Amino acid sequence: MVSKQQKQVVLKDYVRGYPKESDFELRSSDTNCVLSNGSRAVLLKNLCLACDPYMRHRMSDQVSHPGTIIKSYSPGSVLVGYGVCKVIQSTHPGFQEGDFVWGLTGWEEYTVIPNPERLNKISHTGVPLSYYTGNSSAEVKLYLTSEPARVPGCWFTGTGGIAAYVGFYNLCSPKAGETVYVSSACGGVGQLVGQFAKMMGCYVVGSASTEEKVNLSKTKFGFDDAFNYKEHDLAAALKRYFPGGIDIYFDNVGGKMLDEVIMHMKPHGRIAACGMISQYNLEEPEGIHNMFNVVVKSLEIKGFVETDFKHIYPEYLEFAIRHLQEGKLVYVEDIAEGLENASSALIGVFHGRNVGKKVVRVASG
Amino acid sequence: MVSKQQKQVVLKDYVRGYPKESDFELRSSDTNCVLSNGSRAVLLKNLCLACDPYMRHRMSDQVSHPGTIIKSYSPGSVLVGYGVCKVIQSTHPGFQEGDFVWGLTGWEEYTVIPNPERLNKISHTGVPLSYYTGNSSAEVKLYLTSEPARVPGCWFTGTGGIAAYVGFYNLCSPKAGETVYVSSACGGVGQLVGQFAKMMGCYVVGSASTEEKVNLSKTKFGFDDAFNYKEHDLAAALKRYFPGGIDIYFDNVGGKMLDEVIMHMKPHGRIAACGMISQYNLEEPEGIHNMFNVVVKSLEIKGFVETDFKHIYPEYLEFAIRHLQEGKLVYVEDIAEGLENASSALIGVFHGRNVGKKVVRVASG
Repeated sequence: MVSKQQKQVVLKDYVRGYPKESDFELRSSDTNCVLSNGSRAVLLKNLCLACDPYMRHRMSDQVSHPGTIIKSYSPGSVLVGYGVCKVIQSTHPGFQEGDFVWGLTGWEEYTVIPNPERLNKISHTGVPLSYYTGNSSAEVKLYLTSEPARVPGCWFTGTGGIAAYVGFYNLCSPKAGETVYVSSACGGVGQLVGQFAKMMGCYVVGSASTEEKVNLSKTKFGFDDAFNYKEHDLAAALKRYFPGGIDIYFDNVGGKMLDEVIMHMKPHGRIAACGMISQYNLEEPEGIHNMFNVVVKSLEIKGFVETDFKHIYPEYLEFAIRHLQEGKLVYVEDIAEGLENASSALIGVFHGRNVGKKVVRVASG
Repeated sequence: MVSKQQKQVVLKDYVRGYPKESDFELRSSDTNCVLSNGSRAVLLKNLCLACDPYMRHRMSDQVSHPGTIIKSYSPGSVLVGYGVCKVIQSTHPGFQEGDFVWGLTGWEEYTVIPNPERLNKISHTGVPLSYYTGNSSAEVKLYLTSEPARVPGCWFTGTGGIAAYVGFYNLCSPKAGETVYVSSACGGVGQLVGQFAKMMGCYVVGSASTEEKVNLSKTKFGFDDAFNYKEHDLAAALKRYFPGGIDIYFDNVGGKMLDEVIMHMKPHGRIAACGMISQYNLEEPEGIHNMFNVVVKSLEIKGFVETDFKHIYPEYLEFAIRHLQEGKLVYVEDIAEGLENASSALIGVFHGRNVGKKVVRVASG
C-alpha cells in the first residue's frame, strides 16, 4: 500500500470569532501511507473523532495563548483531535494489525502515526468493541468509552469522565447536602458532574441552552432542577434555585456566567474551572468584575487539566464501571455520521447544538 | 463618671469613589460613659487605631456587597475599627481597670463596650506594653503587636501577620526555589510575605508605588528585587523579573494588576487573594479578562479571611517571636499622631501614602 485516496478535514486559516464552514475544507487527496521497513510507525483507520471545545484554541494564532500548553494548528493542515482508531499496518513491535487504539489522530480516514508510543491500546475485555466507536443511537452508555484506566484520554479526558470526576471529587471536595450548580449540564462533562453530585447526596441544578436539554438534565441525568439560561434572567434564576447560595460551581462556560455565579456563592464555596466555552470565540474575553467576592467569601477557583490526574484513572475506572453495571450512571452522545458532517458537527458545539457529547463517526470498524 | 467630652471621627455619609476629608467630621461631643450596676460592660480608653483598607467597604452602602461578612457603617456614626485600648472602668467580672485589650473599638478617645467578651485581653509577658501601642518612630519591630495567639486580630489579623502567614504558608504551599510576586510590598501584609518568602528560600519580587517603598522593600525586607509599578509597564516588568514565570502571587491589590499577573503565572501557580485595594474606591470594579489561563495553567485562586485560621495562631506566634528574637523579622509601621490626623491617615492608605502599616496613635497609655 503506497497511497490512499481519502477525505480529510483541513483548517484553511486561523479562525476569528465563531468558526464557520468556510474556515474548513473537506478535501480529497492521495495520502502517502508507506511505512518504511526501518520505521516504528502505524497506519490507522480512524473510526470516531471527538468534537472537543478546546480545539477552538488550536484554531487561533498561538500568540493569543502564550505560556499555555495549547499549540495552534497549522493553516492548511488536517485537524487533529482525540479519536478511536484501528491499526491496519504496523512497523512498531508494540502494535499489530487489528489492534484498536485511542489518542490524537487526524480528522481524515487514515493517519500515519510515526511515534505510536503515545497511542493507547484499547483493552476491551467484556466491552464490545462497538462501544468504543459509538453507534447510531444518540444515547450511548458510558462504557462505550469507559476504560480510561487502560484508555485514558479520548472523550473521557479532554471533556469527559476524568475531567468530571477529578474536577468534582478532587477539586471541589463535595459533601452530602451541599448545593451544586453545573453549567452546560448536558455536555460531555456536565451530565456526569450532575450524576456524581446526586450520588454524593448533593442538591444539583444545571443550566443549558434549550428546553430539550433542560428536560434531559432532569429526566435522564437526575438533576434536581435545570433551567434554560437563554430564557431566564441569570441572577433571578440563581437566586430562585439557590436561595441559600451555592457551595460548588462546576464551570464549563466562564465569562458572564462565572461573574454572576460568584455573586451567588456561599462562603467557602469552590469553583472548578473546567472550561470556558462562552469565551473561546470572542476577540476580547469578557471581564470578571466580582472577584472581590473571592476574598470576602473565601472562595476557591481551581483550574485543572485532567492529564495531571492520571493517578486517579484506576479509581475512576472502578467507580465508573461499577456504577454503570448498577445502572446508576448513563452517558449521552450526539453522533454525526461521516467526515462530510465533521466540520458542521464541531461548529455546532460552539452554538450549543449538540445534545450530549458530540462525536463524528468516520467508519464503523 | 457620667459623661466625657471627647473627640470622635464620624462618617458623615456613604462614600463614593475615594474617601475624602469632607466625608469625615472630627467632632467634639459629650459621651455617656455611665456603666450601670447591672451591666457587664467596660469603658475603654483608646490608644491606637489601625487604618485598614477593608474599612472602605464599610463606608459604602451595604447593597454593594450582598452575601458577604461586611456590614456598612451608619452615616453620622463614629467609625469602628481594630484598636489597642486600656480598660478604665469595668462592670464585667472578666475585665479590670488597667487591663489592656484589643478588638473592634470606636475612632474616638473613649468607648463603652457593652459586650466585652469579644475583646481580647493583652497578655504582654516579656513584651513591653508600649510595643502594643506603637511609638514615635516610623519603624516598629513586629513584636509591637506580635502576640496574635493571645491577641488574635488587631493589625496582625485584618491586614497583618496572620493574613501574611496563612495566606503564604497555608494557601500557597510554597517550596524553596519558587518564584513569588507580592504587590503592595511595603504594606502591613506585603512586607511580611516578602520576608516569609525569603525565609522559605524563594525568589521574591515586590512592587510598590514610590521609590522610597521600592528601596525599603529591598534594603529592609530583603526582597530580591522590587519595582515602582507606576513607573514601569507592568507586563514588561513582570517579564523582566520573572522570565520563567511566577509560582506564587500574593495579591493585595486586585484589578488590572491581578489580570496581568495571571498571564505571567507558571502552570500550577497559586494566587492568594488577600485584598484588592485598587478596586475599593471604584464604582465599577475592573474586569479580569484572562481567566481562561486559570484553566489551561491549572491555577488556583484562593480568597481567605484570616479569622478562619484561629487554629494557626499559636503556630504563628511561635514562628513570629522566634524569628523576631533571632533578628530575622522586622515590621514597619507608619504612625499618625492624634485623632486630628486620623481621617487623613486613613484616606492616605488608599493613595499609597503610607510607608508600612498605617496606625493612628490616640493616646500613649
